[in-house]
Amino acid sequence: MAKKDKSLPKILAFDVFGTVVDWHGSIAAEASRLKLSVDPNAFATAWRDGYKPAMARVRSGELGWTKIDDLHRMILDQVLEQFDIKTLSESQKRDLNFIWHRLAPWADTVQGLTRLKKQFTIVTLSNGNLGLLANMAKHAGLPWDLILSAEIFRHYKPDPETYLGVAATFDVMPGEVMLVAAHKDDLEAAHRLGLQTAFVQRPNEFGPTHLRNDLREEEWVDYHASDFNALANLLSA
Amino acid sequence: MAKKDKSLPKILAFDVFGTVVDWHGSIAAEASRLKLSVDPNAFATAWRDGYKPAMARVRSGELGWTKIDDLHRMILDQVLEQFDIKTLSESQKRDLNFIWHRLAPWADTVQGLTRLKKQFTIVTLSNGNLGLLANMAKHAGLPWDLILSAEIFRHYKPDPETYLGVAATFDVMPGEVMLVAAHKDDLEAAHRLGLQTAFVQRPNEFGPTHLRNDLREEEWVDYHASDFNALANLLSA
Repeated sequence: MAKKDKSLPKILAFDVFGTVVDWHGSIAAEASRLKLSVDPNAFATAWRDGYKPAMARVRSGELGWTKIDDLHRMILDQVLEQFDIKTLSESQKRDLNFIWHRLAPWADTVQGLTRLKKQFTIVTLSNGNLGLLANMAKHAGLPWDLILSAEIFRHYKPDPETYLGVAATFDVMPGEVMLVAAHKDDLEAAHRLGLQTAFVQRPNEFGPTHLRNDLREEEWVDYHASDFNALANLLSA
Repeated sequence: MAKKDKSLPKILAFDVFGTVVDWHGSIAAEASRLKLSVDPNAFATAWRDGYKPAMARVRSGELGWTKIDDLHRMILDQVLEQFDIKTLSESQKRDLNFIWHRLAPWADTVQGLTRLKKQFTIVTLSNGNLGLLANMAKHAGLPWDLILSAEIFRHYKPDPETYLGVAATFDVMPGEVMLVAAHKDDLEAAHRLGLQTAFVQRPNEFGPTHLRNDLREEEWVDYHASDFNALANLLSA
């Protein structure tokens, strides 16, 4: 679905966790590899469940600026306690926390981004910190033109400073930027600020036991695609 | 020249203007293309001469945070007046100002960076703003793992926040970062803060009439290379 009444954007800004990379599958696989005494899917779900509440503490000002690596570690320590996992050394915990730097891309990600990069400037707009996103891009071969992060704007999504910050970085109007995300709340915040929006379906983001149900097209979303190659087709890249 | 008593760095941070790209040649060529009634080399030199004084006004606090695109435009307006050039429209001036987004790489740049990227994480550490550096990388095919800029740290080099900011971004020690630059003052500031240093010779940085004279090896510099391929050889990348 394409809205023909708008010009094509100049900048595509991608949400990362869930949209570009498969956090659930990567973390569940790591839990299996480490032989943690826990259901790998439950472990991945519990770790991610701590994410929005932790960021909310930063967004409200209760916590000072804290980067995602440190929030992930705080949550990990809670989850390890919750599941009564006591077999990991400090260096193993530190390495496990960095699984977020090594998340695997979805099957279409690298090819789709490579196609889109030929026609657009492609950037991240992620709550992940810069070091995490750079390591992830190197590990997974993600061909970003620029890595933008909440860490730069000192605000987490969905704070307006993040979406508008992409436009300001490139000296363009908000309507010349399109957010690409698998999450409607993220897209809604961008839409309200005048950015264009593309929804990408990632039904398996939450793993095999919690399929995402809400994959419906929305009237206010500019493009609706089954994956990044389909998005490239829609934008005729 | 390699200091064998140090471990290899993990992160290579590159100065950009003069080290990675040929600002003088690119700007002189643009002045010729636009048929400006001025000696192209003198025009390029005058524009760049305004750079350090403009940043010094930001560093001292006399000017609030101002990104390089805007400093370049302030200097350009002065230089056009100095050379009594009145033939450019506002949109031509705006486009001319963005020549800094389209600077050409040195002949060895892309190949050298591509080789170094296989062994190291390669990032920029430039006073250029993020949009400028991203557009430049896309235009010239520079394969950065991450674009870091004074704009992120809200400090211009040689303020310590910039050099130490690279290490903090990747959670490594300053000695695990190496600054690569054609400028000894930049390298000296990094060296004083514990970073490793590599000097790269760019004798033509200031154009054909102002060859850089000081290409000497220095005892305190860790690596001294004639270009990026020579640096890759020294680091056996």
